[in-house]
Amino acid sequence: MVFILKPNVPKEKIDKFITEWEQKGFSTIYSVGTEHTAICLIGNTIAVDLDHVVQTNDIIDFGKRITEQFKAVNRTVHEDDTIVKVGDVSIGEGFFPVIAGPCSVETHEQVLEIARSVKQSGAKILRGGAFKPRSSPYAFQGKQVEGLDMLRLAKKETGLPIVSEIMNQTQVDLFDDVDMVQIGARNMQNYDLLKVVGKLKKPVLLKRGLANTIEELLMSAEYIVSSGNNNVILCERGIRTFETYTRNTLDLSAIAVIKQKSHLPVIVDPSHAAGIRSLVPPLAKAALAVGADGLMIEAHNNPAKALCDGAQSLDLEQFGELMSELKVRAEIEKKIF
Amino acid sequence: MVFILKPNVPKEKIDKFITEWEQKGFSTIYSVGTEHTAICLIGNTIAVDLDHVVQTNDIIDFGKRITEQFKAVNRTVHEDDTIVKVGDVSIGEGFFPVIAGPCSVETHEQVLEIARSVKQSGAKILRGGAFKPRSSPYAFQGKQVEGLDMLRLAKKETGLPIVSEIMNQTQVDLFDDVDMVQIGARNMQNYDLLKVVGKLKKPVLLKRGLANTIEELLMSAEYIVSSGNNNVILCERGIRTFETYTRNTLDLSAIAVIKQKSHLPVIVDPSHAAGIRSLVPPLAKAALAVGADGLMIEAHNNPAKALCDGAQSLDLEQFGELMSELKVRAEIEKKIF
Amino acid sequence: MVFILKPNVPKEKIDKFITEWEQKGFSTIYSVGTEHTAICLIGNTIAVDLDHVVQTNDIIDFGKRITEQFKAVNRTVHEDDTIVKVGDVSIGEGFFPVIAGPCSVETHEQVLEIARSVKQSGAKILRGGAFKPRSSPYAFQGKQVEGLDMLRLAKKETGLPIVSEIMNQTQVDLFDDVDMVQIGARNMQNYDLLKVVGKLKKPVLLKRGLANTIEELLMSAEYIVSSGNNNVILCERGIRTFETYTRNTLDLSAIAVIKQKSHLPVIVDPSHAAGIRSLVPPLAKAALAVGADGLMIEAHNNPAKALCDGAQSLDLEQFGELMSELKVRAEIEKKIF
Amino acid sequence: MVFILKPNVPKEKIDKFITEWEQKGFSTIYSVGTEHTAICLIGNTIAVDLDHVVQTNDIIDFGKRITEQFKAVNRTVHEDDTIVKVGDVSIGEGFFPVIAGPCSVETHEQVLEIARSVKQSGAKILRGGAFKPRSSPYAFQGKQVEGLDMLRLAKKETGLPIVSEIMNQTQVDLFDDVDMVQIGARNMQNYDLLKVVGKLKKPVLLKRGLANTIEELLMSAEYIVSSGNNNVILCERGIRTFETYTRNTLDLSAIAVIKQKSHLPVIVDPSHAAGIRSLVPPLAKAALAVGADGLMIEAHNNPAKALCDGAQSLDLEQFGELMSELKVRAEIEKKIF
Repeated sequence: MVFILKPNVPKEKIDKFITEWEQKGFSTIYSVGTEHTAICLIGNTIAVDLDHVVQTNDIIDFGKRITEQFKAVNRTVHEDDTIVKVGDVSIGEGFFPVIAGPCSVETHEQVLEIARSVKQSGAKILRGGAFKPRSSPYAFQGKQVEGLDMLRLAKKETGLPIVSEIMNQTQVDLFDDVDMVQIGARNMQNYDLLKVVGKLKKPVLLKRGLANTIEELLMSAEYIVSSGNNNVILCERGIRTFETYTRNTLDLSAIAVIKQKSHLPVIVDPSHAAGIRSLVPPLAKAALAVGADGLMIEAHNNPAKALCDGAQSLDLEQFGELMSELKVRAEIEKKIF
Repeated sequence: MVFILKPNVPKEKIDKFITEWEQKGFSTIYSVGTEHTAICLIGNTIAVDLDHVVQTNDIIDFGKRITEQFKAVNRTVHEDDTIVKVGDVSIGEGFFPVIAGPCSVETHEQVLEIARSVKQSGAKILRGGAFKPRSSPYAFQGKQVEGLDMLRLAKKETGLPIVSEIMNQTQVDLFDDVDMVQIGARNMQNYDLLKVVGKLKKPVLLKRGLANTIEELLMSAEYIVSSGNNNVILCERGIRTFETYTRNTLDLSAIAVIKQKSHLPVIVDPSHAAGIRSLVPPLAKAALAVGADGLMIEAHNNPAKALCDGAQSLDLEQFGELMSELKVRAEIEKKIF
Repeated sequence: MVFILKPNVPKEKIDKFITEWEQKGFSTIYSVGTEHTAICLIGNTIAVDLDHVVQTNDIIDFGKRITEQFKAVNRTVHEDDTIVKVGDVSIGEGFFPVIAGPCSVETHEQVLEIARSVKQSGAKILRGGAFKPRSSPYAFQGKQVEGLDMLRLAKKETGLPIVSEIMNQTQVDLFDDVDMVQIGARNMQNYDLLKVVGKLKKPVLLKRGLANTIEELLMSAEYIVSSGNNNVILCERGIRTFETYTRNTLDLSAIAVIKQKSHLPVIVDPSHAAGIRSLVPPLAKAALAVGADGLMIEAHNNPAKALCDGAQSLDLEQFGELMSELKVRAEIEKKIF
Repeated sequence: MVFILKPNVPKEKIDKFITEWEQKGFSTIYSVGTEHTAICLIGNTIAVDLDHVVQTNDIIDFGKRITEQFKAVNRTVHEDDTIVKVGDVSIGEGFFPVIAGPCSVETHEQVLEIARSVKQSGAKILRGGAFKPRSSPYAFQGKQVEGLDMLRLAKKETGLPIVSEIMNQTQVDLFDDVDMVQIGARNMQNYDLLKVVGKLKKPVLLKRGLANTIEELLMSAEYIVSSGNNNVILCERGIRTFETYTRNTLDLSAIAVIKQKSHLPVIVDPSHAAGIRSLVPPLAKAALAVGADGLMIEAHNNPAKALCDGAQSLDLEQFGELMSELKVRAEIEKKIF
């Protein structure tokens, strides 16, 4: 149940209203938007008389029942798009940054060369895997702590904010000056990890699990936001289907659905979805056209020798070409690229 | 195994070459493109010495083995895009027509009103279901023969070529002046029907089955083309997955894959895929961006009262708006809209 | 809406009741069971006052609304199991026949050898493909009419009833003395074919499509039964999932669901589901345990040289061993094997 | 690459062989079975000359290449079934224990009543969720530490060993006298958690993720076993498909596949797969018939009031009846029940 407040209501009246409901055993989410301010009531609201509450509280403009299980991330609660800031890069509501970088960070030189090149091509954020979830215990597990250092150095040299995947809740301190932590697809329903990153102040990039519904993705985001961290960016990266030409099936309808249902920004990772380099440019353009708020693309200085997922990485020149193609299309879509 | 011929080879030399191989028990497909002419050998080619054939036949420029099971629809055999003509409307290689109309034809007035309106908005072909495959025997099964007459009348009045779904092989004669026959998703592997439409001269719109792989779709097209009808247009209309927000999951990666693997045009039906009106515009734009050769969109003069699938139909005004949005984007993609 | 009649109601009263409702625009299904007789009303029953009808018609014992879309195949309409007779072999309600034979019939000798052997091992019905739906137009398409003759001969020699797949509605006459026609998975939603076999008197074996829900399977059966043919046997043969070890994923839960929802017999085809010979025996035993009414198993005299699907066929000795194992377990399940 | 050793080879020769290979940069797994002892070499074995190694090392009987990515859990390495002991309950190679209990532990009385009853019915291990992974942050999250205490008390009173789900790697100490830790489906690819439980000595119940392949399940088991803990029991609990009647689709073929590919015991959880009480008994019987090594079944003293998943729980009487039915069938399958 969400109550949209009248404009310019004094803060103490709001606090009083919230306190009253919390004393009755409800949780509340207080959400300030540019258009309106909302208070969301969570708990067993079946017995609550909506009309009565609206009529007897002069701070309330109107009220609505939310039937979806997700509340804090629901567009009903926060009608305008949320803009998340990663370092000084904005994402959401017309800002369309591209995140680029290698699947795995390998050496200082590699990360630096890639970072400089993708920055020049227009990328706004640098990605790189330091801790790698691999299905085989015998496969390369990433450069780990040393890998995070490589990213930090690249950030220092290029000024690009950085994002890297966190694998478990004991690693939080290791990500101290990493600008955004990524929750990988396999951890999308690792609820204890979600609660821990929900206590952070920094942005969280939440990837959709490969067999998770849109609703489950939004519920996982709800774990983070309801823990206190509003800075969540969702990411569609392909779902598991029977099709075998592509590694996964990129679900671009999900972008259109999420833009309707939630106020959070949502980006697309075409590289992991397709698993094939030549499919990345067409899927990137389609993601922009369908309404995504950004892209995450793998780019590598030497894809043939990449320690991980080389087959899906663009080389730096291909990445540059794609960025030029996206630039023209971003103008049409009125996106700040 | 495909042999690309040298330019300007005399026809009798080609015939001689073909006859020789057919006498050895192989089937052949002879394919004339704008760039080159190819002869495709079908049968057990494992024992054939490719280099030897090339060296001992002076009409051959070079030869390649095709590992895919689909031969006649393979881009290796026919490198440039195939252009299919529906009436005088071209589709493929830069021509991007929009097919529009109601899910089911209902009355003369309805079809005519819709046809006139979508034509004015820029649609090039009129669609309309006369025979409707319905999962329930108690549901409306379409206006049938009478429905085809309504479409013919609308064609006569507006000049738009028409497309409608054929349900079984005994109906071929009923479709006499229907410009394109549609094979529905449920019939994609009705091989006897494929063989029958393969004997026709008119274009066939082949929809992907909702649990069929891209390879199976191409194999079904192979049935038609190898029966003698090259005029096949493929159509992606969503696949069945675990996701429930959308009726099906539109697989736009499939478009990018098909454009690489095959020379046939491929279009997208966002209406059936999503099942929700508001998702049609973003998915239509994404389909254009990913490289589709056209769109098939449901439009209705009164979606709320449609006898079938009203929830996914745009009204005529919404359709017009979408067409304006597509027009700008088609220019960027260098498509003739 | 279904009305269960009181015992021993005179036929003319029943006819009068049916006529009344048909004049009001409803369809009716009249179903005689061993426990009770039912009349099912199909149409827009929302406005029908159930209690009023029961109170004002003395032939009615009680009435129920059916919320499922399938009516005639619904267990609510026909509470006891339907027994279908294939030749003189019963299937359903405790009768558990095994159908066996080759994927494709190849020669008279092959069919006869297999038929004699599987009969000796306890099989009750002979299967064999004459018309083969193949994803490639270049693959072996079956022995066709000649193949049906081979089956007829084997029937004559062994006395086993025969079942073979029909591919399209023009073939009905070809199946004249074939005891049961099979609708293959790819044709499960070929509604025009379903209507045609619904006019036959002989049993129909309806295989579940590989991406069709249980409800869609029951709706396809409804097409046949509502066309007048009650002799439908359902068959689960695996569904398409992301798993790749097995060709398809056998959905044994579907058997338990169908036994609750419908009165029709349902059997399991473990050979096509698994696609691997060694998985057939464990899956066959599981099918018996979960409550199936029979099995369809591929057996071949020389699987290594089979023209089709040899990898999944048991040889005749393996088939015999499996039958011994099933025999003991059928006793436990109180099935007539 | 696996080397099967001759019988009665002195330990120092084995150690010398292992040391040699580890010095060359390979990992080794040393596996003692009842039939034979094996050493598995992990690393880049492509350049290793298998025949040469066998001929020049007199401790080796023969060698094989393993093409699967999973090594330590591969049946090639350890030909006979592994028996895992949970408390003093054996599982695997003919031992077929049933694990039963509530989805969530709620009160001391509830757990105790259920534990006593299921023990009397023949259950060998008590299950109960203390930490509950829930898709909504607002849903009941389990009794947590207090819940584990309730299980311990029930263990003390009934003597049944206990199993409960661990949610993250910081909880290991909390599970000190819990006999088996469960890795839930959502955590199947939480590799850091797998490594941590791989350092424990106690058995791990590893549930298949709902969209994970059999191979991925075995690779996750490989994480645990290669970390040093051989006591892994696999659990099939349904996969996500398009079917909606059942919550998930129980993949019983997976049991037959796993029994061929791996030496680890594998059990079935029909309650979570189906999500519907009435489907549990038929699926439990099918699981036994297909070759599973045990079952995990939800039983509750008052399913209608269960705090979690009541719809799928058997009541104690229904559980007792099912156990009687299983008992007869276990004899046929020669399982120690």
